[in-house]
Amino acid sequence: MALVPDPASRSALPPFLRACRGLPGGPDDRVPVWFMRQAGRSLPEYRAIRGSGSILDAIRDPELSAEITLQPVRRYGVDAAILYSDIVVPVAAIGFGVDVAPGVGPVVEQPFARREDLERLRPLDPEADTPYVLETVAILAKELPVPLIGFAGAPFTVASYLIEGRPSRTYARTKALMHADPQLWHELMGRLADLAVTSLRSQVGAGAVALQVFDSWAGALSPPDYERFVLPHSRRVFAEVADLDVPRIHFGVGTGELLGLMADAGADVVGVDWRVPLDVARGRVPADRALQGNLDPAICLAPWKVVAEATRDVLARNAGHPGHVFNLGHGVLPETDPSVLERVVELVHAEGRCDGTAPPAPGSDRER
Amino acid sequence: MALVPDPASRSALPPFLRACRGLPGGPDDRVPVWFMRQAGRSLPEYRAIRGSGSILDAIRDPELSAEITLQPVRRYGVDAAILYSDIVVPVAAIGFGVDVAPGVGPVVEQPFARREDLERLRPLDPEADTPYVLETVAILAKELPVPLIGFAGAPFTVASYLIEGRPSRTYARTKALMHADPQLWHELMGRLADLAVTSLRSQVGAGAVALQVFDSWAGALSPPDYERFVLPHSRRVFAEVADLDVPRIHFGVGTGELLGLMADAGADVVGVDWRVPLDVARGRVPADRALQGNLDPAICLAPWKVVAEATRDVLARNAGHPGHVFNLGHGVLPETDPSVLERVVELVHAEGRCDGTAPPAPGSDRER
Repeated sequence: MALVPDPASRSALPPFLRACRGLPGGPDDRVPVWFMRQAGRSLPEYRAIRGSGSILDAIRDPELSAEITLQPVRRYGVDAAILYSDIVVPVAAIGFGVDVAPGVGPVVEQPFARREDLERLRPLDPEADTPYVLETVAILAKELPVPLIGFAGAPFTVASYLIEGRPSRTYARTKALMHADPQLWHELMGRLADLAVTSLRSQVGAGAVALQVFDSWAGALSPPDYERFVLPHSRRVFAEVADLDVPRIHFGVGTGELLGLMADAGADVVGVDWRVPLDVARGRVPADRALQGNLDPAICLAPWKVVAEATRDVLARNAGHPGHVFNLGHGVLPETDPSVLERVVELVHAEGRCDGTAPPAPGSDRER
Repeated sequence: MALVPDPASRSALPPFLRACRGLPGGPDDRVPVWFMRQAGRSLPEYRAIRGSGSILDAIRDPELSAEITLQPVRRYGVDAAILYSDIVVPVAAIGFGVDVAPGVGPVVEQPFARREDLERLRPLDPEADTPYVLETVAILAKELPVPLIGFAGAPFTVASYLIEGRPSRTYARTKALMHADPQLWHELMGRLADLAVTSLRSQVGAGAVALQVFDSWAGALSPPDYERFVLPHSRRVFAEVADLDVPRIHFGVGTGELLGLMADAGADVVGVDWRVPLDVARGRVPADRALQGNLDPAICLAPWKVVAEATRDVLARNAGHPGHVFNLGHGVLPETDPSVLERVVELVHAEGRCDGTAPPAPGSDRER
């Protein structure tokens, strides 16, 4: 990935795509910012139109999903939008029997437990199984003023939902299966990798210009287990969308010890949660990768002075590196006041630097 | 802490206390091992006597608590026992209105929310408030063939329960309070530090010969927040029990980025969860500290071959360092087969080395 400025491609690229590519901006270019789960319960306009049913029902309605995706772009002026969807959409669409229970998360009627369950994981036919996703993407590709990020769940995190049957704190069944029957585990992961690839390719085909692969719970694994049971499959997902030539983001929480391996899987951009200071994270991934993150979402519930200081600390730790997409370290909390996020966007745009020079950072010294 | 072997003190100390002190053992000395939550639902003999009520009721019965503490020592031949108790015992004993709901965890009737709630946190009088704890410790000091570890919750983790009112995934209220009203936060933490100190001192007075301070959820914090809002209080807890001259263990999960700061708080032994390989953890704490850990508890649900390989990997990464207390990276999962833990103890005793030479480790190369 070129780190040498190329004025032509620089001016042609929106800030988000420039940063994903690690291309330096000019002194007047801005650090791009978006927020995971920026479309969601923190927004009154979302609560007004979302209704109370399963998110899967809302996702099946392209006009509604497109509108929900657009809402935070209008309100915040963020530099990218992520498709309103869910990582269980493909497995639900092929009939595995998954729903997303409000206030709980994905719930599986009959969790994955044995070899026969592989038969319940047939290949995805996006046109037939998830036409609503393609339609939503197509609407957004026309209407969005900023790049659209498509996404999929990484094989491990989707597998953990299918095996546990509901959100887990220990991932005990998932780990037990991978160790007890590695062959079955790898076959399961292979099918889930196929689903992710097919879904991601279809989203780009319909108009998405970037991709994020969520391995939200990979941080539950030790590095040796990640390397052996997860990395080969995530690597294949990234490899099999490489020819699409769109930036690929790889994200999980609690992944401090896995950042190097997650970069290894082939991502252009590595997501970092708030536990690892951005300068420390930079030292754990190859120099040619961009980073995304990493303000603690809970900080956004604090008084503005604290939020501003923490935002400036993230910028200071990035030290003007061109490969930085500002984001939270995990999704927006539902109780967040949207006006705080508005101000974070303004601050990042006003003070962030992406030309290799660090921004002024009065707070960062005090915090170290 | 002396790293030079002192044959006299070495032979006088049980393996657990020797390792906590970082003192080299001889070639025939064993690596000590115990398991967090070794007394608990994984044991049939525990389920047989425990009943179905709140753990707080069981803790108020010294004969029962002592028996529960002894059970895993008899079954496993572990090198230490931890008092059967709970980190909310002191706050419950002074009447804050906390119970531990089976299958849920600590639940607080009226969570801590404002300055007036400080009044609900009076000092602990161990003789009057928790006589049953002292009695249990006294029984165990007589009956236990191995060292007894007393314990307390660290101020942050206890605060998180008091503020959230029940187990949380985000600690949003806790973080909001610390940032919105730092003065109130520090006063709350000060009172909880006092409670921890008083409780720990009373346990040692009654016969405990080591201490573990559980800051189980500190890993939810960024390093700057930990340093500013937590470290001063945990440091005071460790300082105010230093004169007791018993080894002090400091443990939390997901604390990869905090290991150095947690050592800084003053612990002799730093607990490490399974996310950080032990050799990596060793590089994050000062050379004079011992480490405790760090087999993934979920690994114990796997076939024995896998458990053995992972156990040997922990030993190999420790490379014979004398300052190693073998343990899991978190508590024993209730679904664990006790016979697996028995075999882990046998394997650690048979193959672990604490004289500075690494054990044979056929599995470790394959995993890297």
